[in-house]
Amino acid sequence: MARGSGGESVLHKHLRVLEAFDTWHPFLTLTEIAQAARLAPSTAHRLVAELEDEGLLERLPDRSYRLGVRLWEFASRTPGAVGLREIARPWMSAVQQRVKQHVQLGVRSGHDVLFIERMSMPDATLNATVIGGRTPLHASSSGLVLLAHGDAALVSAAVRDPLPVYTEYSLRTAADVRSELRRVRAEGFAVADRFIHLESRGIAVPIAGPDGSVYAAMGVVVPSDGSSPLPYVELLKRASAGIAGDLAVAYRADGGGRVHGIRSLVTSSRRSLEYLELRGDRL
Amino acid sequence: MARGSGGESVLHKHLRVLEAFDTWHPFLTLTEIAQAARLAPSTAHRLVAELEDEGLLERLPDRSYRLGVRLWEFASRTPGAVGLREIARPWMSAVQQRVKQHVQLGVRSGHDVLFIERMSMPDATLNATVIGGRTPLHASSSGLVLLAHGDAALVSAAVRDPLPVYTEYSLRTAADVRSELRRVRAEGFAVADRFIHLESRGIAVPIAGPDGSVYAAMGVVVPSDGSSPLPYVELLKRASAGIAGDLAVAYRADGGGRVHGIRSLVTSSRRSLEYLELRGDRL
Repeated sequence: MARGSGGESVLHKHLRVLEAFDTWHPFLTLTEIAQAARLAPSTAHRLVAELEDEGLLERLPDRSYRLGVRLWEFASRTPGAVGLREIARPWMSAVQQRVKQHVQLGVRSGHDVLFIERMSMPDATLNATVIGGRTPLHASSSGLVLLAHGDAALVSAAVRDPLPVYTEYSLRTAADVRSELRRVRAEGFAVADRFIHLESRGIAVPIAGPDGSVYAAMGVVVPSDGSSPLPYVELLKRASAGIAGDLAVAYRADGGGRVHGIRSLVTSSRRSLEYLELRGDRL
Repeated sequence: MARGSGGESVLHKHLRVLEAFDTWHPFLTLTEIAQAARLAPSTAHRLVAELEDEGLLERLPDRSYRLGVRLWEFASRTPGAVGLREIARPWMSAVQQRVKQHVQLGVRSGHDVLFIERMSMPDATLNATVIGGRTPLHASSSGLVLLAHGDAALVSAAVRDPLPVYTEYSLRTAADVRSELRRVRAEGFAVADRFIHLESRGIAVPIAGPDGSVYAAMGVVVPSDGSSPLPYVELLKRASAGIAGDLAVAYRADGGGRVHGIRSLVTSSRRSLEYLELRGDRL
């Protein structure tokens, strides 16, 4: 492995630079990058130049940097993020047309739920989720769904006292979380009522992937008004079944066996998909 | 710079591995990766292991690989792709509710237009565009818009005879393209009628960015039925003005000067944005 001083791989150093950019800091100067990535200025300078050469960073007229569109281009080929989002989106829209608050889609990434899509109305209740943002698994309804269908080793590793607590209603101990997970498995949905903010609750259900295991979670964030979550659960379960069906079709496109084909990644009109499949990548 | 044999940087080799995955081949075995990236099997093995360690590649139960969700996570912080998409999306929806075909959003990447969002109805006309896909600038209406507002050096470099030709209606020579670009600049929109497929035409307009220069193009793909493009142009221009206004607001959030703040990247409900801005990245 190509390693610099201290045994850190070159790749890891490049990623430290990219990680300096977050949702609250999408634009950084070279000095800010060096500080955030804890790199010597000369090292930061060299790594940034390499990343800029490849289009992974873009320099703006004011000499600050932002993450480059080329990064997004790679990301557009991730079946687990963009492919899933494309397949889920019409179903999420259908839920949102009824709920008119927030609808969101999350996948597990380590001990967090990573949100890959969200639809929000301008006057919807407070929702701490951003697209590309993470929440600890135990703190969100989508996370509880993913944790409830994870294996025992994941639960042991992800749920350790002391847990971060946001409000007086947050789950406080590993025992609380485990008891909640049993309920989620029994009832098929999770509710996180005022876990992160007093005005909101999340309600989420699992989405089955092409191999039948739980692949993602879809949830709504709605006001914490004491009403029954069941009408939301009903809507979400119907949409989740629709997404699971569409995922199964997309991944069965080549007649089974190892997955190929663009339908795991691309949705479009029927005519366009037929054309794209025939054309292959010859354009 | 960390370089392997032949002077190629380590970063460049990692990217060659990631580039082996495309829209038609989202799942690859190690052997297929080595072939597509033109790497020795032992080199491919090492690079893939490094990328898998960092979550940029994910190994599936059948031992094939796909691009990892961590790549998408970086991409979710690109103001030029995801940020623009978030701001444009409600306006694109409004166009799509009227047009009910395809609406798409593209940015320039080298000599291509790179499409970062598309909304399509299942029964819409044939459209060769995929999200994350590229089309040469001269071959699409969005590309012509971007080219028309690019500088002379870009036009000279991107438009060289012989041009790739898809149908008998494609622009065939650099002179044809230059004459078309003058028309686009004069009229404020581009039409690509049957340039790529005989049944479809693209119609696109520019979107002004926060600094006033052309930042992106938005277009529709509709049947090539001989009707006037002007009703589509009217709809697109209204939406484009809306996006430009929202971009200006998002980028003015910190009162001018260098851009900060999450509004260039995140849209949500008003309550959520206020909360997120106050909270900072402390959650």
